[in-house]
Amino acid sequence: IDAQDKRKTASMLQDFHPADIVEVYEELNLEEAQFVFILLEPMRAADVIVELEEDDRERLLENVPGDILARKFIDRMDSDDAADIIAELPDDVKADVLSNIADREHAGDIADLLNYDEDTAGGLMAKELITVNENWTVATCLREMRGQAQDIDEIYFVYVIDNDGILKGTLSLKKLLLTKSDQVADVYDKDVISVSVDASAEEVANIMNKYDLVALPVIDGIGRLKGRITIDDVVDVIREEAERDYQMASGISSDVEASDNVWQLLRARLPWLMIGMIGGVFGAKVIELYEGQLSLYPEMAFFIPLIAAMGGNVGIQSSAIIVQGLASNSLGIESNFKKLMKELGVAMLNGLSLAAILLLYNFIDSDSLALTVTVSSALLVVIIFASVFGTFVPLGLNKLKIDPALATGPFITTVNDIMGLLLYFLIGHVFYGFWG
Amino acid sequence: IDAQDKRKTASMLQDFHPADIVEVYEELNLEEAQFVFILLEPMRAADVIVELEEDDRERLLENVPGDILARKFIDRMDSDDAADIIAELPDDVKADVLSNIADREHAGDIADLLNYDEDTAGGLMAKELITVNENWTVATCLREMRGQAQDIDEIYFVYVIDNDGILKGTLSLKKLLLTKSDQVADVYDKDVISVSVDASAEEVANIMNKYDLVALPVIDGIGRLKGRITIDDVVDVIREEAERDYQMASGISSDVEASDNVWQLLRARLPWLMIGMIGGVFGAKVIELYEGQLSLYPEMAFFIPLIAAMGGNVGIQSSAIIVQGLASNSLGIESNFKKLMKELGVAMLNGLSLAAILLLYNFIDSDSLALTVTVSSALLVVIIFASVFGTFVPLGLNKLKIDPALATGPFITTVNDIMGLLLYFLIGHVFYGFWG
Repeated sequence: IDAQDKRKTASMLQDFHPADIVEVYEELNLEEAQFVFILLEPMRAADVIVELEEDDRERLLENVPGDILARKFIDRMDSDDAADIIAELPDDVKADVLSNIADREHAGDIADLLNYDEDTAGGLMAKELITVNENWTVATCLREMRGQAQDIDEIYFVYVIDNDGILKGTLSLKKLLLTKSDQVADVYDKDVISVSVDASAEEVANIMNKYDLVALPVIDGIGRLKGRITIDDVVDVIREEAERDYQMASGISSDVEASDNVWQLLRARLPWLMIGMIGGVFGAKVIELYEGQLSLYPEMAFFIPLIAAMGGNVGIQSSAIIVQGLASNSLGIESNFKKLMKELGVAMLNGLSLAAILLLYNFIDSDSLALTVTVSSALLVVIIFASVFGTFVPLGLNKLKIDPALATGPFITTVNDIMGLLLYFLIGHVFYGFWG
Repeated sequence: IDAQDKRKTASMLQDFHPADIVEVYEELNLEEAQFVFILLEPMRAADVIVELEEDDRERLLENVPGDILARKFIDRMDSDDAADIIAELPDDVKADVLSNIADREHAGDIADLLNYDEDTAGGLMAKELITVNENWTVATCLREMRGQAQDIDEIYFVYVIDNDGILKGTLSLKKLLLTKSDQVADVYDKDVISVSVDASAEEVANIMNKYDLVALPVIDGIGRLKGRITIDDVVDVIREEAERDYQMASGISSDVEASDNVWQLLRARLPWLMIGMIGGVFGAKVIELYEGQLSLYPEMAFFIPLIAAMGGNVGIQSSAIIVQGLASNSLGIESNFKKLMKELGVAMLNGLSLAAILLLYNFIDSDSLALTVTVSSALLVVIIFASVFGTFVPLGLNKLKIDPALATGPFITTVNDIMGLLLYFLIGHVFYGFWG
């Protein structure tokens, strides 16, 4: 982009949706990005800032003075987006920005929102609301709504409050269009699902998902309406939740992406690999215990990887089913005993089929009856152990209020590896005693 | 629940939200469930049917005749929910239900929707729309909207079409409340993002997520408005997508849940375990190749599980990062070469740190210099191989339009296990040649 193209670039970008500008944006270096940014009209620039990834935004806004940030951009954002962005700024810039927001009511809303933890309903909500009083007439209502709507992008919901600001219900635009009554009290819907400011983001996501809500009002301890959360903010929570469980199961901590740099990726991966390696060292110790047996019957070493891998695979399956069930609240109401019985049933069937196939294979392929019987018996026992362990560790962690996803991935694989080896050599010891 | 409690149960359930009734419902046996169901007023019963899990719904509706189903429930559902439920019915009941829907226009909408594949925009959309003509006045508009709104739960969006039914834009209720003009043409927003009926569910989810949309209009090949998709239908798609990737990585096929029965769970898990077992048999063959070396140096067996497990762990990490990046479109625009370089960087750093720690440990703990050097070198090489393999297999599959998630989990773990063993013994062969 050279200087002569300025006009062209500017007029081109005016027709783009902010989300598309963000995509163009990510391909530019900092200098080009700042250049593009200057060309955007402030409203669009504010939208682009909101859509940018946190890293990109920090880099871009680093050298922008607080008063310009406040007047040009923050003033034009919804309170929830503005609060998220201000929360990322260094403390001195934060105060500077807040004091330079022209609309003092907006500044007050943002300052309020900064008090909430970002993973709570308070941290997710926006203060932009259309509210009407339950004692108003329909005509007053429409007039007031017109006034309030000036500041708000789009009206999806109108909330009804009483004189103390307590949430009483919702007013449907449809009913407002159709009504013949002239009192709001006759028209509004008193069944309203709301959430407390300190509910967790996960609870908010579960409630909105369960009741198929597009927006959810947020109330304080005494029921006063404080803000509303819209589904688009929660979609990210839901997606991140599901992705995080997958990442934990894959041995990746903190929310990394392929586009992060080498150090971020390393920090997220190395600790889990360390756990795996320590497990491997324990595994080595287990095998060392049976060194005598191994030098007598070196063919026992052949099936070490098979037994270890199957223990790991089965444990991952079992824990993934439980972790997903806990995350989506779909575990159902089966008692733990029934769950255990079912998991045991699956494990027995898996174990018996695989052990039988392996028995047949070794019967044909191997000369050692002791090895053949050992490998298949160990496989069956390991599958049953790994299933039960993979089911109960996440359930147990969940009961202790520890994130059950921690139990998936390297931890459970490692424990199952070691236990698998122990069981394998123990069983081998017995059977070689008979047939060896 | 006995007969005398009928009245009490009925009046209690009237105050429940359908989603809550579903929860109570899942705790009941079939007989109790049918009893509860009869007590519900039809509107609420229809909502409950929509919210039920597919299995539960099939069981419940099995014995309900088509005409009753049509008249009591389907008539009261939105077209998209109705189409989903009818699609699950046996073919003869399907026709029976369709012909018994009292509202013929509703029946026509449902029949139209049945033509679309359930994983496309057409399959997700509902036909309930509020549309206005671009040539109308604001007054006509409001009158027409009142008429259309009778059939529709809630108005979030009003779409503007021309005389041929081509989608021209959206009309914001806010602007309608605020406008001073009396022509719709002056008020409506001509920038509208829409999607074609045959776009995939994944595309729909990506578009709605990217542009933070609450509803998305669906058009046919020539731009005519056919329906709309709301975000609540897409949240499930997004969640299922993320969950499915996690399940594939854990070696679980088809969408099973902890509450499914033993056979469903077995079917989803056994095939993947078979892959793992076949891999284990190949692993056994690899070790058998080096049986001579193993009986000379049985201590080489100690580190078989460590090497195999680390190959698996690293491969899972790398593939998970790529699969998530592909799923969320956040891979960025880095070239494949740059991705390879970065992955190699991470692999080198991971490999060097872990190999160094293990070298130190074995230097202290083990008497065999050959073993010490072999294990650390093999670990480094295996980590690098598994990283590159775990990165490029999913990228390659994606290029071939095969679901990259297939490459995660047991498949990649198994290949890395076998390669790890080969590399370990090869390296051991060389180093024991020097120091053995």
